[in-house]
Amino acid sequence: MNHINKIEHLGIAVKDIDAANTLYEKLLGVAPYKQEVVASESVITSFFKVGENKIELLASTDEEGPIGKFIAKKGEGIHHIAFDVDDIVAELDRLEKEGFQILNKTPKKGADNKLVAFIHPKTTSGVLVELCQEAPK
Amino acid sequence: MNHINKIEHLGIAVKDIDAANTLYEKLLGVAPYKQEVVASESVITSFFKVGENKIELLASTDEEGPIGKFIAKKGEGIHHIAFDVDDIVAELDRLEKEGFQILNKTPKKGADNKLVAFIHPKTTSGVLVELCQEAPK
Repeated sequence: MNHINKIEHLGIAVKDIDAANTLYEKLLGVAPYKQEVVASESVITSFFKVGENKIELLASTDEEGPIGKFIAKKGEGIHHIAFDVDDIVAELDRLEKEGFQILNKTPKKGADNKLVAFIHPKTTSGVLVELCQEAPK
Repeated sequence: MNHINKIEHLGIAVKDIDAANTLYEKLLGVAPYKQEVVASESVITSFFKVGENKIELLASTDEEGPIGKFIAKKGEGIHHIAFDVDDIVAELDRLEKEGFQILNKTPKKGADNKLVAFIHPKTTSGVLVELCQEAPK
């Protein structure tokens, strides 16, 4: 079993989802295939396909939400990288034993029908890493 | 023709290439396949394969180089995203006409046998975007 299959998506924090959709449609040459609100995270997300990978734009619906706080502190830009895995629970267990700080020991429901969990950037050279697995139907 | 084929790699700025190699080998479950100095950019790079994509670690050999300055200002973390294209000159021309600010109108030789050019983050929601094309032999 591969530990990590591929980059599933790259998450980019943006201020205005409509303006960013227009910009990334020009940049990537494709239209977003999905827009989805994740109320628990106070975000509107928008997804673009780029080969086998995706770009996820994230705009905050609440200044006090995680993306609102990120933009207030760092401005717009790359927020996280998400890796696709076959068995998120097994990978979280493996990575915790390797010394990474797991932020969600029980994976939670994310956008785009995924089970997701994050690793603290202080244990990954400043990179917020997400693991995700297609949620069972 | 696709404008953008895929995410070619994600570039991560790190302070210590050896420590980061160890960390990312644990995270990704694979060893780096190549380490390469790019003297013109004052960096040591290290590459990991993740499915069809790559992770490029970048450590500075000079505090005044681009990665040295980036880490001094923002700390370690994701530095850029690189998209694979078939015809970098045609794509740069297309993107300039779409209003993106191209930093290298003539592509330059990058690591891993690529022709590369960057787009200014102020025109891409704060994301430093690289286009890259396999260099002709």
